[in-house]
Amino acid sequence: MKAFMDENFLLDSRPAERLYHEYAQAMPIFDYHSHLPVAQILEDARFSNITQVWLYGDHYKWRAMRACGVPEELVSGVPNAAGDRERFEAWARVVPQTVGNPLYHWTHMELQRYFGIREVLSPKNARAVYDACAEKLAAPEFSVRSIIRRSNVKVICTTDDPTDDLAMHRRLAETDWGTAVHPAWRPDKALTTAADAPLFNAWADRLETAAGMKVGTWDEFLSALWSRHRFFHDAGCRLSDYGIERPWAAAYSAGEIESAFRKLRGSRASLSGAELERYRSALLFEFLKMDAEQDWTQQLHFGAKRDNSSTAFKLRGPDTGYDSIGEFPVGDALVALLDRLESAGKLARTIIYVLNPKDNDMIASIAGSFMDGATPGKIQFGTAWWYNDNKDGMGRQLSALSNCGLLSRFVGMLTDSRSFLSYPRHEYFRRILCNLLGGSVERGELPEDYDLLGGLVRDVSWNNAAAYFKMRGA
Amino acid sequence: MKAFMDENFLLDSRPAERLYHEYAQAMPIFDYHSHLPVAQILEDARFSNITQVWLYGDHYKWRAMRACGVPEELVSGVPNAAGDRERFEAWARVVPQTVGNPLYHWTHMELQRYFGIREVLSPKNARAVYDACAEKLAAPEFSVRSIIRRSNVKVICTTDDPTDDLAMHRRLAETDWGTAVHPAWRPDKALTTAADAPLFNAWADRLETAAGMKVGTWDEFLSALWSRHRFFHDAGCRLSDYGIERPWAAAYSAGEIESAFRKLRGSRASLSGAELERYRSALLFEFLKMDAEQDWTQQLHFGAKRDNSSTAFKLRGPDTGYDSIGEFPVGDALVALLDRLESAGKLARTIIYVLNPKDNDMIASIAGSFMDGATPGKIQFGTAWWYNDNKDGMGRQLSALSNCGLLSRFVGMLTDSRSFLSYPRHEYFRRILCNLLGGSVERGELPEDYDLLGGLVRDVSWNNAAAYFKMRGA
Amino acid sequence: MKAFMDENFLLDSRPAERLYHEYAQAMPIFDYHSHLPVAQILEDARFSNITQVWLYGDHYKWRAMRACGVPEELVSGVPNAAGDRERFEAWARVVPQTVGNPLYHWTHMELQRYFGIREVLSPKNARAVYDACAEKLAAPEFSVRSIIRRSNVKVICTTDDPTDDLAMHRRLAETDWGTAVHPAWRPDKALTTAADAPLFNAWADRLETAAGMKVGTWDEFLSALWSRHRFFHDAGCRLSDYGIERPWAAAYSAGEIESAFRKLRGSRASLSGAELERYRSALLFEFLKMDAEQDWTQQLHFGAKRDNSSTAFKLRGPDTGYDSIGEFPVGDALVALLDRLESAGKLARTIIYVLNPKDNDMIASIAGSFMDGATPGKIQFGTAWWYNDNKDGMGRQLSALSNCGLLSRFVGMLTDSRSFLSYPRHEYFRRILCNLLGGSVERGELPEDYDLLGGLVRDVSWNNAAAYFKMRGA
Repeated sequence: MKAFMDENFLLDSRPAERLYHEYAQAMPIFDYHSHLPVAQILEDARFSNITQVWLYGDHYKWRAMRACGVPEELVSGVPNAAGDRERFEAWARVVPQTVGNPLYHWTHMELQRYFGIREVLSPKNARAVYDACAEKLAAPEFSVRSIIRRSNVKVICTTDDPTDDLAMHRRLAETDWGTAVHPAWRPDKALTTAADAPLFNAWADRLETAAGMKVGTWDEFLSALWSRHRFFHDAGCRLSDYGIERPWAAAYSAGEIESAFRKLRGSRASLSGAELERYRSALLFEFLKMDAEQDWTQQLHFGAKRDNSSTAFKLRGPDTGYDSIGEFPVGDALVALLDRLESAGKLARTIIYVLNPKDNDMIASIAGSFMDGATPGKIQFGTAWWYNDNKDGMGRQLSALSNCGLLSRFVGMLTDSRSFLSYPRHEYFRRILCNLLGGSVERGELPEDYDLLGGLVRDVSWNNAAAYFKMRGA
Repeated sequence: MKAFMDENFLLDSRPAERLYHEYAQAMPIFDYHSHLPVAQILEDARFSNITQVWLYGDHYKWRAMRACGVPEELVSGVPNAAGDRERFEAWARVVPQTVGNPLYHWTHMELQRYFGIREVLSPKNARAVYDACAEKLAAPEFSVRSIIRRSNVKVICTTDDPTDDLAMHRRLAETDWGTAVHPAWRPDKALTTAADAPLFNAWADRLETAAGMKVGTWDEFLSALWSRHRFFHDAGCRLSDYGIERPWAAAYSAGEIESAFRKLRGSRASLSGAELERYRSALLFEFLKMDAEQDWTQQLHFGAKRDNSSTAFKLRGPDTGYDSIGEFPVGDALVALLDRLESAGKLARTIIYVLNPKDNDMIASIAGSFMDGATPGKIQFGTAWWYNDNKDGMGRQLSALSNCGLLSRFVGMLTDSRSFLSYPRHEYFRRILCNLLGGSVERGELPEDYDLLGGLVRDVSWNNAAAYFKMRGA
Repeated sequence: MKAFMDENFLLDSRPAERLYHEYAQAMPIFDYHSHLPVAQILEDARFSNITQVWLYGDHYKWRAMRACGVPEELVSGVPNAAGDRERFEAWARVVPQTVGNPLYHWTHMELQRYFGIREVLSPKNARAVYDACAEKLAAPEFSVRSIIRRSNVKVICTTDDPTDDLAMHRRLAETDWGTAVHPAWRPDKALTTAADAPLFNAWADRLETAAGMKVGTWDEFLSALWSRHRFFHDAGCRLSDYGIERPWAAAYSAGEIESAFRKLRGSRASLSGAELERYRSALLFEFLKMDAEQDWTQQLHFGAKRDNSSTAFKLRGPDTGYDSIGEFPVGDALVALLDRLESAGKLARTIIYVLNPKDNDMIASIAGSFMDGATPGKIQFGTAWWYNDNKDGMGRQLSALSNCGLLSRFVGMLTDSRSFLSYPRHEYFRRILCNLLGGSVERGELPEDYDLLGGLVRDVSWNNAAAYFKMRGA
C-alpha cells in the first residue's frame, strides 16, 4: 500500500515514477491560460491568511461548501462575510466530505508544496493549520512573485478585455523578475452582450474611449477592435480566447451585419434570433481573422451553461458557482467555422476546449481535419477543462486525444485559476500523463525507451507550448 | 486468482475488503424506489418455484432470452406460457450466454445469498437447481416478509398512482413487522396521457372517484390532485417520482392551460405540439410545487424511450422488454425548471436520474448549481439506472458524482425492482463503492483512514438516505 | 515489466493468456467488411515496397503525418508525390510521435507478423527496415493471396456499388484458392447524391446500363435496383452496407416520392429539405426490404461527418483524411426505421455501427429492442469503428454491448481496411477481448471455466459470424 500522497502520488509503476521524476518534474511551467490578477503580480502582493487565497474567489470550493449545507456568509461571504478564521474552519469541516473530488487532492497538494504541511486537513487541526499558514504567509517567499518563481513558472497569460488599458501589464513588462506575463485577448462582451443592448452599448462606449475613435457603424466597430488587437499585440499579447456557449457559423451578408449593428448601436435595440446569430457569426469570424493576421493562437471555450440559478445570480453575480456543463451542439458549426477560415487563408493556430466530455472524441477528430502539414499540432484539442479538470477527466481527454490525434504534439496543461497557489495542478497533470505512459510501458504496450517517452513528457510539459505560442519568455 | 464470486467479490484490495466487511455489510437497506407489489407484502406471499420470482415479470431476463433466440412462450409467456420448469430450463440455457452482463452476477448472487447455492447455473444443473429452490421456497423463511427481513431492509417505497386508494398500504402500516413500507406518488399518467384523450379521461374519471370531487376544469383538476397528494401524505408518503422522457419547462399563461385542459377534458380532444408541451410544463411545475409544500423528496427519471417495437407492444403491452435509452435533450429545460421552482421558493429535495450515460457529467454539474446552503446534498444526481445498473455504469455514475459533486452526500442505491430477491443489488453497489475507495487508498490517493472512509461508506449505504427522506422507519 | 509487444501483448493475466493462445489465436478470420481492391486479389498482386502498401491509401497515417507538419508530397502525394523511399522515411519520423495512437501498435504488429521485424521503427532504422521489407515483398509469400492465406482469412467481403459488373468477383469465384471473396452491396450514391442532381443522374445512367433497363420513374428505379440486388445475390453477395450520416425515417406517400423522383431524374433538379428527407427515407426503406427478402444481413454505418476541409477536398477528393466524428441524432429515427421494417415483416439481420461513442449505450439498448426470439443476436451493435478502432474504443464498445446486450452473440471484428496487411487488427481485437474476460476471471468476476469462456471467445472470433451471415466459405 502506498502512503497518502507521497512523492509517487499518482505514479503506479516504476516507469511512471521515472518519467515523472527524471523528465517531467524539472520542466518549467507555461501557464497560457489563467485568471490571475495582474495588479497583485505588479505590486508583488502578500496575503495575511489562507482564507484570502483559498476562499475569497474559488467557486469550486464554494459549491462544495453549499452542497454540505454551509450557509453563505461562510462560503462566498456575499452579501455578508463571516471572519476569515471562521470561514477557514467551515472549509476544514467540508474537506473530509470532498473525498473523491479533485478539491481533496488540490487542498493537500497546496498544503504540502507551499506550506510543507503533510497532515490531512480536518476540523481537528483546522485551527493549527490556519495559524501555521498565516505564519508562513508573512515570510518573503510567499509574496506573489516568489510563489510564481518557486513554482517554476516562466510564462503567464492573464485574461483581459479589449478595452483594458493594459497599463499594469506594460509596467510589469518593464521589470525583469524571471517570469513573462502577457495579456490575453478575451472579447466575449462584444459577442454576448449583443442580446442586451444597454450592456453592449456601455461596453462599446468603453471601446470608443480605449481606441480613441468613434464606434457608430460596423466598419468603425471593426476598426476600433483592430486598433485594440494591435495594441494588445504591441503589449506582448499573442493569444486570444473566446468563451462562448457554442460556435457560430451562420451565413450572412455585409448588409445584414451593418444593419444589425446599426440597430444595436444606433437604435440601442437588442438583437435576437437569426439576426443575433448572424451578428455573432460575423464578429467571431472577424476576430479569428485578426488572430490569423497577427499570427496569434486562438482559444475557443465551448459548452458552459452559466448562471443557472437566477436567484443566486441576483444576489452574487456571475462566476460564483452556479454554472454547469451545457448540452450545446458544437460539431457542425465548428467545422463550418474552421473551414470558412481555412478557405479564406485565415485559420490561426487554434485550441478547442469543450466542457461536455461527451464531445471529446468528436472534437479531437475535428481538430485533426484541419492540420495544414506545416505547423505541428496546429489545431489542438485543449486540456480537460473545469468539471473535467480531475484525474478521470484528464484521463478521458488524453485518451481521446491519443486515439483520434497525437498526444505527442499536445501543448498541455494550464491552470485557468484565480489563485496563485494553483500551480500544483500542472504537477497533477504531469503525474497523470506519466502514469498513463508508464503504465503502458509496464504492460508492454510501449517500449521502455526513456529517450522517446521522457522526450514526449518534456514536450507536453513545456517544449510544445514554448514552440507553439511564439511568445516572449519561452 | 480469486475464486468466482467469493466473499471478496468485487473487492480488489485489502482496504476495499475492510471497508465492505467492517463498514458497509451490516448497514440496513433503505429501498426508496421499487416496483414491489404491496399486496404480496401484505399477505406475506410465498412462491412455489423460482420461475415465479425470476421469470414472471423480469424484462431484463426476457430481453436476454430473446437475444438468444428463445421463443416467447418460454420468455414472457405472452400470449401462451410454457410450464414453469421448462421456462426455468430455458433461462438456464441462456445464463452462460449472459457472461459480461449484470444478469450473470445477479443470478448467482441471488442463488448464493438466498438459496445457499454456490454452483454456476447451467443447463447441466438446471433441473437440480430448480428442485432445490422449490424445496427452499416452501420454507417459512422464504415468505415475502421473511425475505425482506433477512435482507435487512428497513424502509421500502413502492410506486403508486395518485388514484390508488392505498388500502393495502394502510392495512400494512397497522402491523409492525420491522420494515416500514410507504407509497410513492407517481402521477405519470396525468402527464403522458394528455396526448391521448381517451386514456387521459379514463384516468381523470378514476381521479374524480378517488378524490371524491368533480374534475371538469384545470382548477378542479389541481384541487383533486392536491387532495390526493395530501391523502398520500397522510398514508406516509414522502416521495414522488416522475418518469418522463425529458423535463418540460415551456412558458405558458394561466389562460392557455385552462383552455388546453378544457379541450382535453371538456372536448375530449388530445393535445399535441406546443399546447401539449405547455400543458405538461404547467402540470409538472404544479406537481413539484406540491412536493415542496409538503416537504417531500421528488425524483425525476429522464431519458427512457419506451415501447420501441410496436409489434411487440400490441402483443405484450408496456414494460415487457422493448425499451431503450433515448437521446432526449435534458439540460436546458432541467435548468429552467429547477430555476423556476427555486425562484418561486418551491424547490423540494430532488433526485435526478438519467438513462443516457452521456449526460452523467452534465446532470451532476447541474445538480450542484441548485444547492441551497442548508440541506446537505439537496439536489442529487441519482444512482445508475436500468441500463447503467452494472459495474461499469455505477463506476461512471460514481465518477461523475465525485468529480462534479460530492460522493459523501449521496443517498445511494435503490433496487427499482419487481422482485423480492433483488436486494443483493444493494450489496453489489456497496462492494463497487468500497472497491472504488479502497483502490484509491491502496494507490495512495486517499488516506488509510477507516473512520473517514468507513463513515462515508455508512453514510452512502444508509445514513444519508435516512436523514434525507424524512420518512418513518429510518 | 512486460517486454514491448511480446507474445502476451495486451494480455495482462494468466487467464487472458490462455484464452488468447488456446482459444482465439487459431480461429480463422471472417472479414465481412473491407475496402480491399478485388482486382489485386484476382491478379494475386505483388508490392515492390512497403510504401505502396502502407502509404498509398491509408488516410489514418496521412492525418498523423499532417499533424506533425509533414508536407503533402510526402503524405498523400497529391498532387505531387515524393519518392517511395522518401515517403517511408517521412513516415518513420512520424511513428515515434504516434505513441498512444493505434497506429503505433498497428505499425509494429504488421512489421512483426508479416516481416518478422521486431525492432521499433524510428528514423534510425528506417532505411534498413525499408530495404528489409522490399526484399521480403519480392518473395512469393507476399503476393496478395499468400498474405490472405497466411492471415488465416476464410471469407472476405469487399464494398461495391450496385452498378458494378462484379466481373472480377465472378472470375475470382471460379478459382478455389482457400478464401471466399464476396461482393457487398453499398448503394450510398443512390441515397446521398439526390442532393446533387448532376451526380445523381450520372449514377442513374450507369444504373440503366448495368440493369439494362430504362430508369425514368420511381418504379423503374426500384425495378432496376431490384435487378441489381438479385444480380449481386447471384454473385454470392449476402450483405449490404449503408454509410449514411444518420437514419432517415420520415413519413411519406407514394405520390410524394414519385413526384420527387420525377423532379430529380426527369427535371434534373436536386432535392433538398423535407423532400430530400422523404426521398431518402423511402429509398432506404426499400433497400432494407430488399435485404430482408433475399435474407441478407444489412449494415448501417452512422455518424461520420465527411470532407470537413473544403480546401483539401478540392485538392484531394474524398477519403483522404479530412473526416471526423459527427453529432447527428440517430436514436429516434433508428427506432422508427426498425419498427417500420419489423411491422412490415421485413426486418433483416442488422448490424448498427456508430462513430460517435457517446451513442454506444443507446445503440446497444435499441438493438436489444428488436430481437425476434428466433435468430440469435439478430440486431447487432457493431464493432468499434474508425476513431473507435483502438484499445479504449473497443473496450467501450464491448462494455456497452455486454451491459446492454449480450457479448456472447457478437459477430465480432472486421478490418474496414484498404490494406492487405491489416489483418493483425483481428488479432488486436481478440487480445483485447481475451484480456477483458481474463481480467474478470482473475478478479473472481467470472468462473475460471475455459469451456465456457474459450467457447465464447471462439464464437465471437469466428463461429457467430459464420452462422450469422449465411455465406459460402464459412
